[in-house]
Amino acid sequence: MRELTLDDLDDMVLGATLLGTGGGGDPYIARLMVRQAMEDFGTVKIATPSELDPDGLVLTVAVIGAPTVISEKVPAGPEFTGVVKALASYLGKKPVAIMPIEVGGMNTLIPLAVAAELGLPVIDADSMRRAFPQIEMTVFTLAGIPASPMSVADEKGNVMVFETINNQMAEKLARSAVMQLGLANGISCYSMTVRQVAEAGIQGSMSYCVELGKRLMAVQRGEAGSYDEFLKFAEAEIYFSGKIIDLDRRTTDGFAKGTVVIEHMKDPDRVMRVEIQNELLIAVENGKPIITTPDLICILDYENAQPITTETLAYGQRVNVIGLPCAPEWHRPGMMELVGPSAFGYEVPYVKMGGEK
Amino acid sequence: MRELTLDDLDDMVLGATLLGTGGGGDPYIARLMVRQAMEDFGTVKIATPSELDPDGLVLTVAVIGAPTVISEKVPAGPEFTGVVKALASYLGKKPVAIMPIEVGGMNTLIPLAVAAELGLPVIDADSMRRAFPQIEMTVFTLAGIPASPMSVADEKGNVMVFETINNQMAEKLARSAVMQLGLANGISCYSMTVRQVAEAGIQGSMSYCVELGKRLMAVQRGEAGSYDEFLKFAEAEIYFSGKIIDLDRRTTDGFAKGTVVIEHMKDPDRVMRVEIQNELLIAVENGKPIITTPDLICILDYENAQPITTETLAYGQRVNVIGLPCAPEWHRPGMMELVGPSAFGYEVPYVKMGGEK
Repeated sequence: MRELTLDDLDDMVLGATLLGTGGGGDPYIARLMVRQAMEDFGTVKIATPSELDPDGLVLTVAVIGAPTVISEKVPAGPEFTGVVKALASYLGKKPVAIMPIEVGGMNTLIPLAVAAELGLPVIDADSMRRAFPQIEMTVFTLAGIPASPMSVADEKGNVMVFETINNQMAEKLARSAVMQLGLANGISCYSMTVRQVAEAGIQGSMSYCVELGKRLMAVQRGEAGSYDEFLKFAEAEIYFSGKIIDLDRRTTDGFAKGTVVIEHMKDPDRVMRVEIQNELLIAVENGKPIITTPDLICILDYENAQPITTETLAYGQRVNVIGLPCAPEWHRPGMMELVGPSAFGYEVPYVKMGGEK
Repeated sequence: MRELTLDDLDDMVLGATLLGTGGGGDPYIARLMVRQAMEDFGTVKIATPSELDPDGLVLTVAVIGAPTVISEKVPAGPEFTGVVKALASYLGKKPVAIMPIEVGGMNTLIPLAVAAELGLPVIDADSMRRAFPQIEMTVFTLAGIPASPMSVADEKGNVMVFETINNQMAEKLARSAVMQLGLANGISCYSMTVRQVAEAGIQGSMSYCVELGKRLMAVQRGEAGSYDEFLKFAEAEIYFSGKIIDLDRRTTDGFAKGTVVIEHMKDPDRVMRVEIQNELLIAVENGKPIITTPDLICILDYENAQPITTETLAYGQRVNVIGLPCAPEWHRPGMMELVGPSAFGYEVPYVKMGGEK
């Protein structure tokens, strides 16, 4: 196990913003929670599955709701330890580690705050290594691991425990609950053993996030060769550099949907359209799909390489659109139906990035 | 304890239809469930609190959802034993008896089916002795007894357990859950001890329902003096006899809302308007409130004395509008705010029926 330092934390925040692919909630807000928790309860250890009892219970924790609400209402805290304690009590078992569901966006960091308070390590794994808008969109679903039993709580003391017949139903019931509980709540789902994490989880995602952030930080500091080094580490590519010439955002069915249109910096005949459903999901250039979910689309400020979230996208911004291949653990049977373009209603084929893994 | 006979069951169905005050779901559907359960598992005993261990756990069971959906989709059964088992398991304790939340409508009978299957007695008490549309509208709320922990289940195997900070929140979260679970679900709430039932519950409501039904049955058979006998037993009065001349029903916010207008049989200048929110809640004659919630408004067929539910109200029907005083246990501090006319948005004063109890 290794200790997470404050430097790591800063790198992780930047990495998580990138892996949020425009969504996932603002990690800078969650960072405040983690710093406070570390001051109050001490630092957090990151553990690999091999360092823990294979039969030990792993519980996840995340914020669920509307990104716009979560950003304005800084999560209070008790709902996050609350959901973990409620699920542990329901299962009649104490966890040996906390795990993020998504390493990407705010939910990368919330498990750290909870782990600090509960005196538990965070396991170096997750189920997305990016952000996705729905609970069932995990590699655990591909492995047949149920999201249920699942707990949801608010900061006032309302707590719910769910047993659902499938992960789609878990999503449906949790979503309906948070609409009643103020749209910024704690959730714990996909309880499993350390062994299951080792078998079905995306390995090393917390470390990956820190390393990714560290390299992007170097780019932002303008270090020589750092952009190439960053792209190489991420197996990423700059697919498009241009100026935002059109932007449409709307909130539909509890999701932030939208479209951003970017005109190429040097060739005005080249136009890229990026489709948003909380996250950036599809990038199409002149009608041809270029980057497609579950691969990651990140829009970075052209000048300072800061990842731009969908809420802060603005007309006239000069940006780089980069693509990162998704975690290799995604490439399992059922991926396309679960998180491919058609899962979000886009009638474009999946374009695999980065060659074979 | 006394055994419930099949004759009792028929009387109870009629009594429950009357106490449903036009709503509460069709007891004739639940009757099928009870008969089947009695055939499969044996008869059910009705117990008074004094016959049970004062510290024993009492669990309630009811159907929750939209009456229109419940009527078309006969409840399957597993969701009702399911919610009771889920709550017992959550509490880590076995119940000594099952209790209806509302003696009025379908929920009078569902506890009998569950009690038969689980081999438990039904306690001769409830929290409404009529039907009301919301979970928090109970004498238990007046006594400060929480509806939570509460369980909700569907027939497919989805189960939820809730801990809520107050009974209004329990209603809100359960309602939102059933909107996702198909609008015809099982619910168990207000778990309590036998002692609490004795202190805060409405006593003898199951027996009352059977006796009321027995007397109304005599009216329907046309026995001499039976109408007077029935009215005397119920401390009830026929307030209006007339013909339905207008009827407006709509489904708003998950509730069946509406207005029925009745013209007096002998004096066309006398017009009664009855307001519906799932149940019949307010009866106003020529602008003057005559019968008001929580007292009971029942519309009976003029010829055969059959209680008419709000779904089967029709233009041209000749009816008697009768009023029954609510159970005396309702007359406690907080009643007006919880179930008086203003609780349903009617700006009329409560008109107390039947004098002092």
